[in-house]
Amino acid sequence: MQQVKGEKAAGLSKQLAQYSLELTYDSLPAEVVEFTKLCILDYFGSAIAGSEKVPVRMIAELAEEMGGAQQAHAVTGGKTSVLNAALVNGAASHVVELDDIHKGSIIHAATVVIPAALAIAEWKQLSGKELIAAVVAGYEVCFRIGEAVSPSHYYFWHNTATCGTFGSAAAAGKLLGLNEEQMVSALGNAGTQAAGLWEFIEDGAMTKQLHTAKASMNGVLAALLAQKGFTGPQKILEGDRGFFKAMSDAYDESRITDGLGEQNKIMENSFKIHASCRHTHHAVDLLTEIFKDRRPSIEDIESVSVESYQVALNITDDPDPQTEYAAKFSLQFCSALALLTGSAGLADFNEEVLWNEDIRALTKKVKVTTAPAIDASYPRQWGAAVEVVFKNGETIRKETDFPKGDPENAVTAEELRSKFIGMTFKYPAQKREELADAILQLETVPEIGQVMAAL
Amino acid sequence: MQQVKGEKAAGLSKQLAQYSLELTYDSLPAEVVEFTKLCILDYFGSAIAGSEKVPVRMIAELAEEMGGAQQAHAVTGGKTSVLNAALVNGAASHVVELDDIHKGSIIHAATVVIPAALAIAEWKQLSGKELIAAVVAGYEVCFRIGEAVSPSHYYFWHNTATCGTFGSAAAAGKLLGLNEEQMVSALGNAGTQAAGLWEFIEDGAMTKQLHTAKASMNGVLAALLAQKGFTGPQKILEGDRGFFKAMSDAYDESRITDGLGEQNKIMENSFKIHASCRHTHHAVDLLTEIFKDRRPSIEDIESVSVESYQVALNITDDPDPQTEYAAKFSLQFCSALALLTGSAGLADFNEEVLWNEDIRALTKKVKVTTAPAIDASYPRQWGAAVEVVFKNGETIRKETDFPKGDPENAVTAEELRSKFIGMTFKYPAQKREELADAILQLETVPEIGQVMAAL
Repeated sequence: MQQVKGEKAAGLSKQLAQYSLELTYDSLPAEVVEFTKLCILDYFGSAIAGSEKVPVRMIAELAEEMGGAQQAHAVTGGKTSVLNAALVNGAASHVVELDDIHKGSIIHAATVVIPAALAIAEWKQLSGKELIAAVVAGYEVCFRIGEAVSPSHYYFWHNTATCGTFGSAAAAGKLLGLNEEQMVSALGNAGTQAAGLWEFIEDGAMTKQLHTAKASMNGVLAALLAQKGFTGPQKILEGDRGFFKAMSDAYDESRITDGLGEQNKIMENSFKIHASCRHTHHAVDLLTEIFKDRRPSIEDIESVSVESYQVALNITDDPDPQTEYAAKFSLQFCSALALLTGSAGLADFNEEVLWNEDIRALTKKVKVTTAPAIDASYPRQWGAAVEVVFKNGETIRKETDFPKGDPENAVTAEELRSKFIGMTFKYPAQKREELADAILQLETVPEIGQVMAAL
Repeated sequence: MQQVKGEKAAGLSKQLAQYSLELTYDSLPAEVVEFTKLCILDYFGSAIAGSEKVPVRMIAELAEEMGGAQQAHAVTGGKTSVLNAALVNGAASHVVELDDIHKGSIIHAATVVIPAALAIAEWKQLSGKELIAAVVAGYEVCFRIGEAVSPSHYYFWHNTATCGTFGSAAAAGKLLGLNEEQMVSALGNAGTQAAGLWEFIEDGAMTKQLHTAKASMNGVLAALLAQKGFTGPQKILEGDRGFFKAMSDAYDESRITDGLGEQNKIMENSFKIHASCRHTHHAVDLLTEIFKDRRPSIEDIESVSVESYQVALNITDDPDPQTEYAAKFSLQFCSALALLTGSAGLADFNEEVLWNEDIRALTKKVKVTTAPAIDASYPRQWGAAVEVVFKNGETIRKETDFPKGDPENAVTAEELRSKFIGMTFKYPAQKREELADAILQLETVPEIGQVMAAL
């Protein structure tokens, strides 16, 4: 989209609205279509795995109690209103901490944007192609807004929730066929609903799931109202009493407009392969490689050391984790697990593995330190080096600049399919494969409801 | 409630939770019960008058489209889920700009707190006494939070929406019978949903109704989830990444706790008698008195001058309003209207009156100025002085420190009943009287559903 002077002067919401409405499936490069389907596959893996977790069950029960028209499927089962579906499906995909992440905007877009798009697409009997285009637009809108307000916004606010609300509205609004004026109102009324404070982290409260649930629902609500002619603020982002000034200490408007319509920022999205904290993934990647080569037992290993950046140690230096959740945030535990088992997936974190004698013994042996060179490249690179000394005197050293799943160290479609199959264990094997097939051929699906009904 | 040392050290949410749960109908002084019933009556007047306005109709249509269990009545007609009922009824009472206002917190509490309380009370078949106690608690909680963050919060944020969310959660949570731990979670998850930016004012968008609708709904949602055990942040107000620090430049924690349990801040609530901007009410009061004494016609009047505080002029100095809405915000128009007709009610703002020749002619004659003495007392007092010079040489001067409806210049129950009767013109006369009777005897009502069914 070439910018002419008059367009540049237009409000940011108007430019985002124009971009969102002009984007078509046919204009997307093939690689963007392929990648977007992987984002959607990855959404479903996390959502299906999360659908039986306690906070998600509570939100699903509430939605059931409230009732609603049979418009769209919830991943927890059955059909409900599109608002309820966005609420439940928005809660579901974030809870197992395996959903996608965009480094530049610090947003997990899938869990907010995709439930909104799915709900409207199913309700309005739209196609896989229409869904794909809407997801690309929703990611673009929220990534740009997140980049514009990062990092200051992130101190108080959960970007995935606040900025995600705009992405939900853009995706839902595009599928509803809003005109430009309506889309500006939808973005305005999305932004005025944007909420989600980090305070819950202090207590480990369930609030994180409420944030993503509500962000998805609120964006859909803004779009549905806009379709009825409900007006909203025209300059919710840059206005004097708008989102930027109220909710960030510093912001960069150019991040909204530079290259808008020329890029597909969804391609910058990262996937998580391991079920642990992202700051452990570099070491897990490297130690898994060593496992594959050597399949060592505890008796073979003299010492293990991991070097990384300081932030990784701030968050994950824990030689003695006491819970399954804490184990995911222990660099020592995750390193031992990877070196002895070759994996750190969803099924690898449980009480049995947590107290396995060999893994415990090796966890105590893992030394973690900050390496100045690695630290200097953070956060552009989330790197690590590992060194394993074997009892036979041999030493293996490996280094990485990017954890697997970053665009610079991309996972293959096959790996993401394996992740999906591993995460959907609540279904029989054949159903998992069929579901993966259907999602990976989404552009051939005439009605999204066909995929949702198979859940 | 006497504070002991340990309690003082407890988090603010915990103290608000304890207060909310300990408050009982039987502990309320008779005057508080009487006043609270007037607040509820006033809520219904504005909500019934607002129920056919365009933005409210749109929200009601959306709720109908989404569907829901038949749990509680919407003022727009029919039963729906408690979340939908809070949404629709929260939108309805703010739109005609005649709902109550608390000066200290800058909150219109009725439109957020009362729909939440009504929805849960009806659904759970609770009594009028239980409703009254919940409304008192809801007002107290949001007034205190609004006072703690005023005035800095108000620059970006619509206090009625942001702080109101806590009031909705407190009222709903009390009626749901939450325990203390659950109530703390409900307040936490209310605060993390708090939203509503003033940016919409630039465009006169419909967003104001979405704010109050969502604030009421979000508080109910937080309370319903808390009842299921969904946890929330324990220190949403004072926490390092909580509401105070994220959403205000300065705040005063003592406003939350000082006198908590010893006061009933609902008694500080102001009512609006005139349908114009609050900053015109002082002059309308005084000129209405002169109308009653003299019933002047345009030919009798030589000049009219109005002195007030600077903020009033900033907002309402408009000698030539072009729309019905603008007329409500024109001090000159409202003054002329009051002097020539003796009223500035809901029915007085319409196209015919807007272009009435005599009122137009007098509007042009009204001089408005700032008086230093009046300005110095603002915002403690919202005062004005008017001077009318008649062609016969006579001059009448009148002054007031408080517009009618402030606690310092209280309206009578009879005046509020008349306001209610005037605002509910969509119903037949007998129905209006019966409804007023029912609400003014709420403490005798065994089930709130009986009142709601009569709407």
